[in-house]
Amino acid sequence: MFFHKQELQYKSTPEKPDAVYARKLQEVLGGQYGEITVAMQYMFQAWNMHIPGKYRDLVYGIGAEEFGHVEMLATMITQLLEKAPVGITEDAVQDDPTVAAIVGGMDVQHAIVAGAGARPVDSNGNPWMGSYIIGSGNLLADFTANANAEMQGRLQVARLYHMTDDSGVRDLLSFLLARDTMHQNQWLAAIEELKADGLEQLPVPSNFPQKKEHTEVSYQYQNFSDGQQASEGTWAGGPSPDGNGEFTYHDGPTTTAQMPAVTHPDARIYGTTDVPNRVEKIAGTVQDKLHRE
Amino acid sequence: MFFHKQELQYKSTPEKPDAVYARKLQEVLGGQYGEITVAMQYMFQAWNMHIPGKYRDLVYGIGAEEFGHVEMLATMITQLLEKAPVGITEDAVQDDPTVAAIVGGMDVQHAIVAGAGARPVDSNGNPWMGSYIIGSGNLLADFTANANAEMQGRLQVARLYHMTDDSGVRDLLSFLLARDTMHQNQWLAAIEELKADGLEQLPVPSNFPQKKEHTEVSYQYQNFSDGQQASEGTWAGGPSPDGNGEFTYHDGPTTTAQMPAVTHPDARIYGTTDVPNRVEKIAGTVQDKLHRE
Amino acid sequence: MFFHKQELQYKSTPEKPDAVYARKLQEVLGGQYGEITVAMQYMFQAWNMHIPGKYRDLVYGIGAEEFGHVEMLATMITQLLEKAPVGITEDAVQDDPTVAAIVGGMDVQHAIVAGAGARPVDSNGNPWMGSYIIGSGNLLADFTANANAEMQGRLQVARLYHMTDDSGVRDLLSFLLARDTMHQNQWLAAIEELKADGLEQLPVPSNFPQKKEHTEVSYQYQNFSDGQQASEGTWAGGPSPDGNGEFTYHDGPTTTAQMPAVTHPDARIYGTTDVPNRVEKIAGTVQDKLHRE
Amino acid sequence: MFFHKQELQYKSTPEKPDAVYARKLQEVLGGQYGEITVAMQYMFQAWNMHIPGKYRDLVYGIGAEEFGHVEMLATMITQLLEKAPVGITEDAVQDDPTVAAIVGGMDVQHAIVAGAGARPVDSNGNPWMGSYIIGSGNLLADFTANANAEMQGRLQVARLYHMTDDSGVRDLLSFLLARDTMHQNQWLAAIEELKADGLEQLPVPSNFPQKKEHTEVSYQYQNFSDGQQASEGTWAGGPSPDGNGEFTYHDGPTTTAQMPAVTHPDARIYGTTDVPNRVEKIAGTVQDKLHRE
Amino acid sequence: MFFHKQELQYKSTPEKPDAVYARKLQEVLGGQYGEITVAMQYMFQAWNMHIPGKYRDLVYGIGAEEFGHVEMLATMITQLLEKAPVGITEDAVQDDPTVAAIVGGMDVQHAIVAGAGARPVDSNGNPWMGSYIIGSGNLLADFTANANAEMQGRLQVARLYHMTDDSGVRDLLSFLLARDTMHQNQWLAAIEELKADGLEQLPVPSNFPQKKEHTEVSYQYQNFSDGQQASEGTWAGGPSPDGNGEFTYHDGPTTTAQMPAVTHPDARIYGTTDVPNRVEKIAGTVQDKLHRE
Amino acid sequence: MFFHKQELQYKSTPEKPDAVYARKLQEVLGGQYGEITVAMQYMFQAWNMHIPGKYRDLVYGIGAEEFGHVEMLATMITQLLEKAPVGITEDAVQDDPTVAAIVGGMDVQHAIVAGAGARPVDSNGNPWMGSYIIGSGNLLADFTANANAEMQGRLQVARLYHMTDDSGVRDLLSFLLARDTMHQNQWLAAIEELKADGLEQLPVPSNFPQKKEHTEVSYQYQNFSDGQQASEGTWAGGPSPDGNGEFTYHDGPTTTAQMPAVTHPDARIYGTTDVPNRVEKIAGTVQDKLHRE
Repeated sequence: MFFHKQELQYKSTPEKPDAVYARKLQEVLGGQYGEITVAMQYMFQAWNMHIPGKYRDLVYGIGAEEFGHVEMLATMITQLLEKAPVGITEDAVQDDPTVAAIVGGMDVQHAIVAGAGARPVDSNGNPWMGSYIIGSGNLLADFTANANAEMQGRLQVARLYHMTDDSGVRDLLSFLLARDTMHQNQWLAAIEELKADGLEQLPVPSNFPQKKEHTEVSYQYQNFSDGQQASEGTWAGGPSPDGNGEFTYHDGPTTTAQMPAVTHPDARIYGTTDVPNRVEKIAGTVQDKLHRE
Repeated sequence: MFFHKQELQYKSTPEKPDAVYARKLQEVLGGQYGEITVAMQYMFQAWNMHIPGKYRDLVYGIGAEEFGHVEMLATMITQLLEKAPVGITEDAVQDDPTVAAIVGGMDVQHAIVAGAGARPVDSNGNPWMGSYIIGSGNLLADFTANANAEMQGRLQVARLYHMTDDSGVRDLLSFLLARDTMHQNQWLAAIEELKADGLEQLPVPSNFPQKKEHTEVSYQYQNFSDGQQASEGTWAGGPSPDGNGEFTYHDGPTTTAQMPAVTHPDARIYGTTDVPNRVEKIAGTVQDKLHRE
Repeated sequence: MFFHKQELQYKSTPEKPDAVYARKLQEVLGGQYGEITVAMQYMFQAWNMHIPGKYRDLVYGIGAEEFGHVEMLATMITQLLEKAPVGITEDAVQDDPTVAAIVGGMDVQHAIVAGAGARPVDSNGNPWMGSYIIGSGNLLADFTANANAEMQGRLQVARLYHMTDDSGVRDLLSFLLARDTMHQNQWLAAIEELKADGLEQLPVPSNFPQKKEHTEVSYQYQNFSDGQQASEGTWAGGPSPDGNGEFTYHDGPTTTAQMPAVTHPDARIYGTTDVPNRVEKIAGTVQDKLHRE
Repeated sequence: MFFHKQELQYKSTPEKPDAVYARKLQEVLGGQYGEITVAMQYMFQAWNMHIPGKYRDLVYGIGAEEFGHVEMLATMITQLLEKAPVGITEDAVQDDPTVAAIVGGMDVQHAIVAGAGARPVDSNGNPWMGSYIIGSGNLLADFTANANAEMQGRLQVARLYHMTDDSGVRDLLSFLLARDTMHQNQWLAAIEELKADGLEQLPVPSNFPQKKEHTEVSYQYQNFSDGQQASEGTWAGGPSPDGNGEFTYHDGPTTTAQMPAVTHPDARIYGTTDVPNRVEKIAGTVQDKLHRE
Repeated sequence: MFFHKQELQYKSTPEKPDAVYARKLQEVLGGQYGEITVAMQYMFQAWNMHIPGKYRDLVYGIGAEEFGHVEMLATMITQLLEKAPVGITEDAVQDDPTVAAIVGGMDVQHAIVAGAGARPVDSNGNPWMGSYIIGSGNLLADFTANANAEMQGRLQVARLYHMTDDSGVRDLLSFLLARDTMHQNQWLAAIEELKADGLEQLPVPSNFPQKKEHTEVSYQYQNFSDGQQASEGTWAGGPSPDGNGEFTYHDGPTTTAQMPAVTHPDARIYGTTDVPNRVEKIAGTVQDKLHRE
Repeated sequence: MFFHKQELQYKSTPEKPDAVYARKLQEVLGGQYGEITVAMQYMFQAWNMHIPGKYRDLVYGIGAEEFGHVEMLATMITQLLEKAPVGITEDAVQDDPTVAAIVGGMDVQHAIVAGAGARPVDSNGNPWMGSYIIGSGNLLADFTANANAEMQGRLQVARLYHMTDDSGVRDLLSFLLARDTMHQNQWLAAIEELKADGLEQLPVPSNFPQKKEHTEVSYQYQNFSDGQQASEGTWAGGPSPDGNGEFTYHDGPTTTAQMPAVTHPDARIYGTTDVPNRVEKIAGTVQDKLHRE
């Protein structure tokens, strides 16, 4: 169950409205790596988790915080939109030339659809989608997904930080940056803890018997481009991070196979084949029966 | 530039057709973490990279391999579909009761749209989307995304391995599992190399001055759920992985702020307010002018 | 069957082109609550309706009108785009500073894709989607959906009215506003008529036996936030609109239940569990067999 | 801010797993009218609301409850999936013919992607989208949207009730049905209260001056189909629900207008016109300059 | 304007319900090449057309017919769904084993969402999207798009023909097949007429001055794969269909260029570069100022 | 298999950055008819093709070239973005008024998400989708789809040519225009060759027995609009392009059928019907049983 409190985790008030910036801020509210994504991702991971205790408490504990971040951003966006221009473009532009940038740069649906309100979309107006998130039940994979989400998220907030000098907005962003610092660190710590607890190892999924994979190519770097410097990396020689192999470097593939013959599906598929009269040839079959009907 | 060779990296021929399994295999071809995703993700990262040399050679080198994996899976799927039922359901079911599962379980668009061919969709028929991928220009964030993609991908292939006993399909999957093992390891090695080379550090992005974030909360675990065991994790005490802080544990938020007052946007937005006759009050303004027209 | 007549229901000619406004007008053509939505929604409701007569005649009668509204808007948009800038941005901006707003604010696909034509998209360029509409077969639910669509639609047209002073555009909008007034009223009248005819009652669906629901909580307002004023509403006390109950007010939930234990799905799912060697433990089972292969 | 409690509002445990039903239940979790939709819709309405007090407390109070409903359904779905078949189709079907229905009817991504977990998708696997929701700032429109959402939602739950005889699932559904009864009633009560409080009237938006609309057609039923019985409805005669007009009935449109002339956009658009050599004709213009370059 | 008549262009009544087939039929109602696509595509082409007369009359004339085809299919689907199973899977399967195929193979949203009604989706439940259609204003391009749509559509209907032996369904399909025959022929005739009328030529767009293109490669077949037989086609030698050139065959590219140097965008983008301390170096610039704040 | 070479097919370097143009250029990279579309479409056609030899070599040969075009455009876009403004809007606008157009007109995700990099989206930021492409196995249909794609693509590039005067960009576009000229011609040549080889004829699919279609209407132009000039076209009289019929012209439909009676699905669907107490009437049935439970 979720309980809502009409307070914010941190103050979220701009110095002054800025409709163009409101649009940009939508990215970290409703984008691929926005706060809706992490809130929903952590909650679905909690619901899909097959192990009780500290790891599940962890995703529950943060997931609920992230819904509060969605709220702080939505609240900020509505304030940034308070003076969004809803009048006639030409008049506005003539009154103040800098308005041209606003008219061009704001999300017009902020005014037309949401009435100067926030929306569950990214900075280009694409709606948030359930396909942004993952909850696989395998915690090593999922916590890596989470670390990535917090990295991409903090990166985007850092970029947004430089796109405004509104001290109120920057104050909120400095708070979000700090929380993203925490969450990056926390997922990386949790990944190490999973290993230390003996619950998961590399490669994911670690209890799939590695002998069933085609082990000859399990630690080969195969270069399908013609840049030579990839051979200089630690991924091209020396022990692999999972501790199970030794990297080797190869120019191109080490195996090859002939393409299989083209398929000849049922004639009723009407694909182009080199047996154009194939239908007639197979009298007595289902095809023949159908064509006679 | 890309050059195509009419060979496969590994043999990809099933023992016998299986239209239901063809549908399942679409997940690792055209799903969120399928081969199209990694191929496109690595290529866009190459094109967006701001540093030449080994890291760019790396993403180019693997990206091109992954397009070959798309091809192996597409080729496998067309063969699995070679005997896909295109006739009348009821007849088929009466002929062979096990056909019921096929009729229910196959992707009907495989027959109707693609003529017994593969499609750029996942196992539920959702089309592949550009929003599955990321190329941010920040390599530490992107390589973490890549590690996650290879983990989720290998996990899905391992699950699919158990859903068939066709030795031809399993042979291909064992090859893909091995390559995913390599790629997981390689991205993790590349992450360490980025740090060793002094190019990136944690937290991402590391050259954003951390003093600009609200540092009081940068290493606090704040528990927004009521599970107590999250306090036992390494994320709740001790040094943080980025080496810059010390974790602390807190039940709930450590900061709080009042919700800002509700906004009062332009009356022409027609939002519900407690100033219902507000339009009339502001004679002389733009609103007034418009309402008089 | 549908028959087209090369006339419009109302005149649709702007005084002068305005490419930025053309983009905004796309919202009520191809947006969530645009004319394509109502046209398609009413038609699907007609086709899905299980009762002949006045209600089906009603949705057919309006649905066909709405397709004509799509046409009026598309026609208006092509005229607004007649002078859309297709030349070089910098030149244009230098010639006339107000062009900057146009360049920034127009839908670039209007020029590049549609050749100065209308498109089945909203004002942010999101394509119209079949998931915007509903036709459930239950008329009380669907007519409520229709009333909402007409309300949101009229609201958006009213907002758009203030974003232009082109008398030709305003003339068309004044016509659409009037029709939306009609359609709002009409669906509300139809809702009342459904009840008066004894066909449907509240709550939807009314012939589901209400005794099968958990009636203890059927009329409880449960407040999951900490705002106290919701207790003052008519929804927190007194008779309910369906005539079947009496509202009561409660701070928070009136029932509670323990979370069920975590699930332990098949080991071949490779989820993280506290039984890491579980696969080995179940010798003799299907898992065991598969791992031995 | 949101706080999570590791309890459920109501018990959510099935008697036994049922992977096909798990798929069906996804509709009311992640579908167009599922619990994610109402949770997000009410929250965005709260954040976009321009009036403090009882109405905002109301949407906050219910929105948080709905997130708890998402959780109950996700929890139920993971349990229904606990025995989801992950093995070989043919074997399974031979062991037990009824398995054919399961194999065909389950959501294969439940196993392959989510590891026997719930997902933010509908019963056909379409991801939840931000475009399902509305928060316009106009409460009369939005509460009508909410009433519709609760009606469609209760209708779907009622249908799902008959698709299982699992007493545990039915118990949860009976709880959800009751809450949907409450929420339908509550939004209808809130609509009446808005009017009684003098905040909003029909038609939405009521403070747009109705004299600006083309009032001749504001209360005309215009029949664009040939069914005659629509003339018998209360929408075809008598006073309109908004109290501002009198309905009249008309066969077809009461106004008509000529189609405007086709447009002739810039030649660089390369549209087909009856002036094929138009580019040459306009020497001295921008087009001419570009073609001479 | 559109007028609806409560008649069908052709009879559309199945012999008996078949919920699985109803799902399959959705493809030609709401799929990529279904009837909604052609109806909407032709109408948008009419609205975007810059030339009055026979070509515009043509798209108007067919577009309206196609909306009637949508109706025939929707009507057929609702009848096929009349006995759709809405009860308990297990019971149904035990009563009749062939029901397993139905349970697995039907679109569950047909029952849960649409109440045994048709939906604007394809056979996998993906909603129809505005991005399926094109109306570019260039008639030669658009009529080619139309010819393709009718070809893909007739192909899909032919495939569907074999998936049923219901004489009512086949009767409707035989009508649709005939109309698709007409429409394929008609678009191909219209393409020739455009050329004969001197309005358009190949290549599209023909009035773009071909001398501005890099003419050296305008008629070269460049083979980027290693299959040699492409050299045998008429596309590899002899005159080109546009009459403007002579085809030549080349193994691989005939031009090549170095990759440009990597870009170095603003440091505030936080991309990984080989100038890690670049921010400090550019004291006095905007970056410097921001970092000092 | 695919092999990548770190060279471009043609030089791709702009004279100077232009972030607004970068956004426009996204259309031909990631739009409906962009280079990702043709690359993926040709490859899937190759994988789905049922006939080896020259036709398959053809699609392989071009498909790989198109991936190289994706690369050239992505490379161009990153360079156009090199100076993308990431600072504060107001400052920038005051410094240089023409910046207003840039601020309004650029794709903000280029900066926030991709760090001055290219993205797999169109010029409005819509992600590329698998549903843009087709590979049906029928080559006559698919090559027509390809001809259309190259026509729409060249048309869009021609439009984009006029939106810049950057000689570097124009140089690349002149190369792409030439290749599109080749590819249009080549698909048209391949269509004729398919017929000459006796593999396919019109109408598609040609081996579906035309006698099974409702031949009375196979060559009738039926005009569902009131424009009279469509009767003047070659599609309204004379021999049809497929050589199988003679066109005739008809005002409106030549057949008609009554609408079937409304359906009465299972009462548990809770659709509105004129048999409100129908559930009770069918005692002894499944419905009755369920309602008694």
